Amino acid sequence: MVDAALLKSDPADRPIAVFDSGLGGLTVAAEIRRRMPEENLVFLADMARVPYASLSPALIERFSAECFQFLLAHDPKVLVIACNTVSSACLEETRQWFPRPIIDVIAPSARAAAQATRNGCIGVLATKATVRRRAYETMLASLRPDVRTTSNGCPLFVPLVEEGWLDGDIPERIVEHYVKPVAAAGVDTVVMGCTHYEYLRVLIQKFLGPHVTLINTPEVTAQALHEHLASRSEKRSENGPGIVQIHSSDITEVLERVVGQLFAGDAGSSRLTVHQAHIVPRSPVTVPNC
Amino acid sequence: MVDAALLKSDPADRPIAVFDSGLGGLTVAAEIRRRMPEENLVFLADMARVPYASLSPALIERFSAECFQFLLAHDPKVLVIACNTVSSACLEETRQWFPRPIIDVIAPSARAAAQATRNGCIGVLATKATVRRRAYETMLASLRPDVRTTSNGCPLFVPLVEEGWLDGDIPERIVEHYVKPVAAAGVDTVVMGCTHYEYLRVLIQKFLGPHVTLINTPEVTAQALHEHLASRSEKRSENGPGIVQIHSSDITEVLERVVGQLFAGDAGSSRLTVHQAHIVPRSPVTVPNC
Repeated sequence: MVDAALLKSDPADRPIAVFDSGLGGLTVAAEIRRRMPEENLVFLADMARVPYASLSPALIERFSAECFQFLLAHDPKVLVIACNTVSSACLEETRQWFPRPIIDVIAPSARAAAQATRNGCIGVLATKATVRRRAYETMLASLRPDVRTTSNGCPLFVPLVEEGWLDGDIPERIVEHYVKPVAAAGVDTVVMGCTHYEYLRVLIQKFLGPHVTLINTPEVTAQALHEHLASRSEKRSENGPGIVQIHSSDITEVLERVVGQLFAGDAGSSRLTVHQAHIVPRSPVTVPNC
Repeated sequence: MVDAALLKSDPADRPIAVFDSGLGGLTVAAEIRRRMPEENLVFLADMARVPYASLSPALIERFSAECFQFLLAHDPKVLVIACNTVSSACLEETRQWFPRPIIDVIAPSARAAAQATRNGCIGVLATKATVRRRAYETMLASLRPDVRTTSNGCPLFVPLVEEGWLDGDIPERIVEHYVKPVAAAGVDTVVMGCTHYEYLRVLIQKFLGPHVTLINTPEVTAQALHEHLASRSEKRSENGPGIVQIHSSDITEVLERVVGQLFAGDAGSSRLTVHQAHIVPRSPVTVPNC
């Protein structure tokens, strides 16, 4: 018998790997799928250990490295880190050992914001950990030293999204509470530095008003990925839809529901599968019958 | 030299083990300390993998079993499970293999509520996972079949507490949103089925009004523990303060801040130490330099 893997000799057939600690990165994976349906995709969420934002930097680096090793075993042509916490905590450290190109979400969003702003005032809404690490400020300052950045941590946004509580008076008040200080700084462009926040886009845009540009991180990240693949002639040439593998360290109802929503109507949905990823090893202590 | 461990021959000197997936259980540990300062305490929080509420039941059982094995290695005389999610998910399974007595938070709180109610209407505020498993309803029905229980999941309470956002208009509105349906059922007694919610006690009591009894889970759990130890003559007879060891699978600033707040003014604070618990093993894949 001929090994099927041997027949698959085109390097462009190798998958695009996408990582997030939780479900937010699925918005990026879904946008990549929409834009490049012919590509093979392997997505990993570390649902057993999410959220990363409250972890110590050492543990963020260790957990994400374990996830990247898992994805590396799928021989990807590129890794998309669709997680702001990991990007802001240990992107440079990861680049030093991960043997494939890496696209993160911070650089494409910051570039898009630097291009979009007219008055030089940019707002960043992110987790407290990402705000504290000043990843966007640093990136924006290197792109356009004349830009003034105003950031605010929005710790209740992720729970609102996970609760699916996306409209009504209280979510609007919470959005107002976090976005107001950024809006008050006179920003004309806002970056959402957490992929979860995409689900609150309508409320955030409503509060900011139509004159403020709200950067679409999934779109600009998929665009950056597309340019990367095109520049290296690594775009897959097949016409039919590629394979989509969704892996998670824990398979929960919420994961299956969100995957169903985001990939609803996908022409190649029969090629989408959900898998348990065994990246969280058992403790060396004996655990009886569990 | 004489091994110090050999001198420590009184079985009552063995520590009380207290477990929670996160920080909420520290309110129970602090109440035990306040009430029985002479006891030795060993507390474990699995901060690296909190929250458990959103995990699959199989993973809750596995992670908590790993934590209980860690605590068992400290040779405790009793285990207090100060985590409603674990108590409602796998208490019976744990009792089948854990070789020490177990006190959980659900039974003492349910007993106190069954005793306190005058009109037979009891409210339960808990995580969605705990509400879904109907642990309080089942326990209350077995204690007093005439009682009517009204439960509501309050998914934004834990993030509010972790954010330290405990007063003001928005927390009051969120408390109103979750507590209103329970209050509307005419309850005269309310159980908080999540140890995190203790931090929101003032707001919840304010909304319920002074005529509604809000069960104090740390108090009734410490009381149940006290009765357990007294009935077995296992109370420590020393007069001086015991040792308090706080272990966590991740040491974060928030953990250290909360420990400092809860144990402020502790007469034996010099005997309180915080330790890294190595219960989250490294992945078997090679992780370079992390």
